[in-house]
Amino acid sequence: MTRTAGYCKGCLNYVFDYETPKTLVISSIRVGCVFRFTQLLVVLFVVGYVCVVQKAYQETDNIISSVTTKVKGFAFTNTSDMDPRLWDVADYVIPPQGDHSFFVMTNMVVTPKQTQSRCPELPSPSTTCVDDCDCIEGHNDPRGSGIQTGLCVNYSSTVQTCEVLSWCPLEIEPELPKHALLSAAENFTVLIKNSVTYPKFKFYRRNILPHINSSYLKRCEFNRATDPHCPIFRLKHIVSEAGEEFQDMAVKGGILGIIIDWTCDLDPWAGKCYPKYSFRRLDNKHPVNNVAPGYNFRFAKYYKTPDGEETRTLIKAYGIRFDIIVFGTAGKFGIVPTIVNFGAALSFLSLVPVVCDWFILTCMKKRDFYSKHKTTYLNDDADPDSISMGTTYGTQ
Amino acid sequence: MTRTAGYCKGCLNYVFDYETPKTLVISSIRVGCVFRFTQLLVVLFVVGYVCVVQKAYQETDNIISSVTTKVKGFAFTNTSDMDPRLWDVADYVIPPQGDHSFFVMTNMVVTPKQTQSRCPELPSPSTTCVDDCDCIEGHNDPRGSGIQTGLCVNYSSTVQTCEVLSWCPLEIEPELPKHALLSAAENFTVLIKNSVTYPKFKFYRRNILPHINSSYLKRCEFNRATDPHCPIFRLKHIVSEAGEEFQDMAVKGGILGIIIDWTCDLDPWAGKCYPKYSFRRLDNKHPVNNVAPGYNFRFAKYYKTPDGEETRTLIKAYGIRFDIIVFGTAGKFGIVPTIVNFGAALSFLSLVPVVCDWFILTCMKKRDFYSKHKTTYLNDDADPDSISMGTTYGTQ
Amino acid sequence: MTRTAGYCKGCLNYVFDYETPKTLVISSIRVGCVFRFTQLLVVLFVVGYVCVVQKAYQETDNIISSVTTKVKGFAFTNTSDMDPRLWDVADYVIPPQGDHSFFVMTNMVVTPKQTQSRCPELPSPSTTCVDDCDCIEGHNDPRGSGIQTGLCVNYSSTVQTCEVLSWCPLEIEPELPKHALLSAAENFTVLIKNSVTYPKFKFYRRNILPHINSSYLKRCEFNRATDPHCPIFRLKHIVSEAGEEFQDMAVKGGILGIIIDWTCDLDPWAGKCYPKYSFRRLDNKHPVNNVAPGYNFRFAKYYKTPDGEETRTLIKAYGIRFDIIVFGTAGKFGIVPTIVNFGAALSFLSLVPVVCDWFILTCMKKRDFYSKHKTTYLNDDADPDSISMGTTYGTQ
Repeated sequence: MTRTAGYCKGCLNYVFDYETPKTLVISSIRVGCVFRFTQLLVVLFVVGYVCVVQKAYQETDNIISSVTTKVKGFAFTNTSDMDPRLWDVADYVIPPQGDHSFFVMTNMVVTPKQTQSRCPELPSPSTTCVDDCDCIEGHNDPRGSGIQTGLCVNYSSTVQTCEVLSWCPLEIEPELPKHALLSAAENFTVLIKNSVTYPKFKFYRRNILPHINSSYLKRCEFNRATDPHCPIFRLKHIVSEAGEEFQDMAVKGGILGIIIDWTCDLDPWAGKCYPKYSFRRLDNKHPVNNVAPGYNFRFAKYYKTPDGEETRTLIKAYGIRFDIIVFGTAGKFGIVPTIVNFGAALSFLSLVPVVCDWFILTCMKKRDFYSKHKTTYLNDDADPDSISMGTTYGTQ
Repeated sequence: MTRTAGYCKGCLNYVFDYETPKTLVISSIRVGCVFRFTQLLVVLFVVGYVCVVQKAYQETDNIISSVTTKVKGFAFTNTSDMDPRLWDVADYVIPPQGDHSFFVMTNMVVTPKQTQSRCPELPSPSTTCVDDCDCIEGHNDPRGSGIQTGLCVNYSSTVQTCEVLSWCPLEIEPELPKHALLSAAENFTVLIKNSVTYPKFKFYRRNILPHINSSYLKRCEFNRATDPHCPIFRLKHIVSEAGEEFQDMAVKGGILGIIIDWTCDLDPWAGKCYPKYSFRRLDNKHPVNNVAPGYNFRFAKYYKTPDGEETRTLIKAYGIRFDIIVFGTAGKFGIVPTIVNFGAALSFLSLVPVVCDWFILTCMKKRDFYSKHKTTYLNDDADPDSISMGTTYGTQ
Repeated sequence: MTRTAGYCKGCLNYVFDYETPKTLVISSIRVGCVFRFTQLLVVLFVVGYVCVVQKAYQETDNIISSVTTKVKGFAFTNTSDMDPRLWDVADYVIPPQGDHSFFVMTNMVVTPKQTQSRCPELPSPSTTCVDDCDCIEGHNDPRGSGIQTGLCVNYSSTVQTCEVLSWCPLEIEPELPKHALLSAAENFTVLIKNSVTYPKFKFYRRNILPHINSSYLKRCEFNRATDPHCPIFRLKHIVSEAGEEFQDMAVKGGILGIIIDWTCDLDPWAGKCYPKYSFRRLDNKHPVNNVAPGYNFRFAKYYKTPDGEETRTLIKAYGIRFDIIVFGTAGKFGIVPTIVNFGAALSFLSLVPVVCDWFILTCMKKRDFYSKHKTTYLNDDADPDSISMGTTYGTQ
């Protein structure tokens, strides 16, 4: 036999040698009970907590969502400073398109017939003046309303202010009325159509559920108790579900979240996947640290006078912006998370013998007897040839 | 030696005692084969499934995306009820700005010259009347069009309805023509610019790929087969890829998802990261349970007459809303998921001896011989001093 | 004893048999050191890298966010081709509502007094003509501006082009001025209100932090060094933080991302959760492969002349779109990821004996001595009754 062949044979032997631990079987009811009970605890924990409570055996996917909204309703106003007027969807929903966010105007400050011209500034410590020397031509005060022309003119019979070039007349912010102009908006309804996708699981669903028929949809209105799946919401109901008072919120405006939770368990043995609606005010109502409370923005309607001059109506619109926030995570049985979590569970089973060995070698009456048979003590300092087999020094 | 010193020495001994299982090496080709084969199976599974198929060794990150769109094209209409008219981007894209969602108007119901005034309600069972007693002044019917004035007036020569204060004349919803007004919209094109970021991996990319040059961009058009990376899409092509007919969809409107999938493997050994486009209709076409099928919304253009009266043109716009949905998850080699999954794999390797021991002790001819050497049986009931060493009762 | 009873008893014995490996304790400082050191390495790695650096013991949740923006400032223009004019928020923020994206117009091409009528096409190789034969009635050139009427008319004293039916006069794209019209926009400020939610952890927060009071908010301005939590941003500052020059960007427009990073560690022992702002230009400035560089869109203001004809002012608006991108992942101690990662760590501890055994049996001087006591070699080919106990062939 050559040397190489011998080496190869050694290698082969090594590859096919199977090394298995020598074991000691202890046939004792008490020890067995401890062993099985510890095992049971680990299994119960893994099955109970990891699998049932946390569903760690599932793969997850994030939602993709598309939303349309359609507001319905109209309001009639008849106040002293405006002609009687009917407001419909095209008037109070700005911008008109129903996306994942829509705005319903509930109050406003209207400044009609503004033109590019000259007018006295609104009175304030920095704009009042005595004569033209107090006003600097071309001065552009960031807190002001326009470019100063350098003249000091009468704002009222008692106050003189610098004249500015701006959209005149200037917007005068009056005390907002305590009662919102379009208070009737509380009875408007909104239809929310939401279709969602979990791309990883090829799962598509709409919030108009399959068991809902058209005649139901024509008359239903969302109510957590009686109609939890109706996609038509009364604005007042939304606001009150969020713990707010519609009429309070309508005066200065605000932002209200309509939260649609599509968190679903898509395993076939799990229940149906339905959207859950909740509502929450997203802006800060009246905290200490607040700037520009409520929600408002300015927009203008532009007109041309017959002689071609541009004029505009400036509207400071107060109202409620409804943000539709769709979120959710779907879980479905997946082989990889199952393996990873099952692997982790197996690791915990390897703790069981550690616990049991400790129990046997410290708590049992026969601990010395068990220890003698389980452990061989090999003292490094001793003579290599004489070992104290069968003598216990183990883990005490 | 004091007692404390002795105790310390015991502790030190314990800390530096190394406990290792006694093992039995079985040098047998059959056993070795079973052992190595089982090991191979586990390794193959871990490498093959967990690493190659599921890429469980990767960290993942979610996408951040920014989209701009720009529609091009114009349409010419020449119908009996309207003057010949050319429609360009500023007319049919509402709102004008190209965000992650854009709307192309394809059909419309126009109600021009509306003013705040009085007119008879549209006839319906609840609005027809015989005399003024049937109409209640100030009544506000949510399904009606305005505030009743209390008068009963002629709607037509045969029908009388209650008069309302509203934007008059009222919008009359005719039968929508079978052919969309702006059917030419099918040849409009849209340029989609999309830049994405995976913040965790500091990865930035645009859908206009580096190898695309300007001259190609000027003439190309997306086609899955020939031009899969051209960011310019013909609307008709998008709709037909989604399995719909543009002219059908244009009549009543709808919502079409342009889905850009940036799922990428960012490991250096993986391929390039390119966007994948797909198209899907997001609203429900003609199911049983549908309300307000299609997609439409109302908006108004406001004018002022020379004598200062406000008048508006109400437009109920039907059209296709294109939602650009960008999603994706990037994966890149990460040390933590690698460790977690490698750990799980190691746990499975610890199953190998269990399988092999079972095989040896039950299936092999020499099972008694192996068992005798592997296992020592310790009977709890027996005399502590006499044990049956070398006798097998093991796991049979 | 019946056979069944015997079988049951066997089963019970099996269930309560506890099998534990026989072990060899080596009491040697050197071996013990290697053992403990290897153990320490694994524990340090797990604690240090997995727990401290990667926080793998945490559950994570994705952010839900709501944004409002409010721009402030005005600009005055006085150019030769336009009357002196003041621009305020209602003029330059389009659309007017402050969502997660807002557009500030900085430059424009205005084409006033367009009506549906006939006019000569803009000259180009395909539109110039010599006589009417060169123009086809009803021809609709996608690169043209309207429907050809079939006539060839004078565009200027030297050039004849085909007449088209379109919104006339046509928009003429001049050389954009090197200086943006609304260059004063750099001093506009924007207030960003952002409220975020981590639904899994029931965590709500606003970017106006609790310790900020109203008087600070009235005068503060974001500055990374001095005011990192002020939610009011000067547009020029945003653009320069993104490494761009406002005046350059204002000419042709662009898209600028305001990125708010809410990545937070919500564990009670971790620090506070504050937003981190960063800024990045999202469109491509001047690369080789670019189409339609910058950012612009067309919109129109519609007017009616006293005789009822519709006329419009077409505006090609150039400007900066600010996209507010909110992202973040919150982590909080979770029992499941802790278990999974602790499980993985335990698996690594099971590697320690492998390393130590290898060290003992190959590197130590007394390796034969250890091997003799640790391993029993069982040769399959040998006589079952005669085994070479105590002889070492192990893993050499």
